[in-house]
Amino acid sequence: MLRSMKTFAFVLYPGLTPLDLVGPLQVLAGFAGATDTYRVVTVAETLDPLPTDSPLGLSATHRFDDVPEPFAVVVPGGEAPTLRALRDRKLLDYLREAAATAEYVTSVCTGALVLGAAGLLDGRRATTHWMFRNALAAFGASPVDARWVEDGPVITAAGVAAGIDMALHLVGKLGGEQAERLVQFAVEYDPQPPLGPLDWTEAPRALMTPRALRTIADGLADAPDLAARLRALL
Amino acid sequence: MLRSMKTFAFVLYPGLTPLDLVGPLQVLAGFAGATDTYRVVTVAETLDPLPTDSPLGLSATHRFDDVPEPFAVVVPGGEAPTLRALRDRKLLDYLREAAATAEYVTSVCTGALVLGAAGLLDGRRATTHWMFRNALAAFGASPVDARWVEDGPVITAAGVAAGIDMALHLVGKLGGEQAERLVQFAVEYDPQPPLGPLDWTEAPRALMTPRALRTIADGLADAPDLAARLRALL
Repeated sequence: MLRSMKTFAFVLYPGLTPLDLVGPLQVLAGFAGATDTYRVVTVAETLDPLPTDSPLGLSATHRFDDVPEPFAVVVPGGEAPTLRALRDRKLLDYLREAAATAEYVTSVCTGALVLGAAGLLDGRRATTHWMFRNALAAFGASPVDARWVEDGPVITAAGVAAGIDMALHLVGKLGGEQAERLVQFAVEYDPQPPLGPLDWTEAPRALMTPRALRTIADGLADAPDLAARLRALL
Repeated sequence: MLRSMKTFAFVLYPGLTPLDLVGPLQVLAGFAGATDTYRVVTVAETLDPLPTDSPLGLSATHRFDDVPEPFAVVVPGGEAPTLRALRDRKLLDYLREAAATAEYVTSVCTGALVLGAAGLLDGRRATTHWMFRNALAAFGASPVDARWVEDGPVITAAGVAAGIDMALHLVGKLGGEQAERLVQFAVEYDPQPPLGPLDWTEAPRALMTPRALRTIADGLADAPDLAARLRALL
């Protein structure tokens, strides 16, 4: 039964940003739970709890080896630990193997850089957190300013909260508009940011650049060449 | 140092809806991390991983006893397991003791019912997930149709994703508009639901009522009187 289901594999690694993961997870688990066709799992190298960038540990339901041919993979992002993950051999191997058969290869936020490090963005249009968007070029991708970008089987979402929008888009593609609307009502996603939508003319780039530089320095201390390439593209 | 900081305690219990927790956690942890004044922790009866309603385990950083006087508590919701939590003596005791000194007592989604069971909503205006909004009256609260409702120290958010909006509101109250905008940019919360905002004239109440009834039956199997009261208020 489970073997014949189409599996969404959400990838966990130490230090990720939990909202990158949990936004689309809640949406897609809600969708999958109402079908006999899809299921959602979380996969990691270990089933032990992993730290995140927040005061919260996360545990996966499956090991990488347990889910060799997912229907879709979702890679969340983060800050320095995500840049460290760019050199995590087991994670990259899993993504490359999964991508060989998966119908969708997706990322949220700087999870796109992990897809890039796995060689999965070469020649593709893609997006990521706005502070790192230009850095996608280091992996052969063409950076696009959009909430999410779909290029063949690869769907990349912008920063953190954008994963929710991308996941709803996927529900709509797979289950139709009615399923998408039902999930949106179930998670009451009727956003009312108190200050309204972001005004991109006010983006605090100068304020956030030192943080991005620290992220690169910390996360890629052992990879000075890649660090220099990303730094130059910020 | 830590003792003098104002602590946001996010409460974990088995079976919660992770997005209820992680949305506001990511927002408030981002805010707190940029200050010397605030810190964010997760608290539970145990530090062992807890199951959620999704394929993901969550581990708290602290036990209830470690954080006796938080500045604020945040209670996430869920479905049947959250109704089970309405009779979790240790959780309710923790909330009552915390509420005695906390400046803010908050909830997301059906976490409001847990506050209600702890006696913290009596005579207050409050909100919760739209399917359970009227059920708040079972705890002496006046249900309000709003994204979040602030009544004295008690702030309750609507369903699941509403926790993000409530958390940004709190950041604005505590840190001002500039801090709120910075966090909003950091988590790129510039929502673009593919189908747009929810049209409440289309709310799938008839479709979701059986699910809510199952939630009550499963979660309150041992509390038939409360189950009957909630059922009557749906």
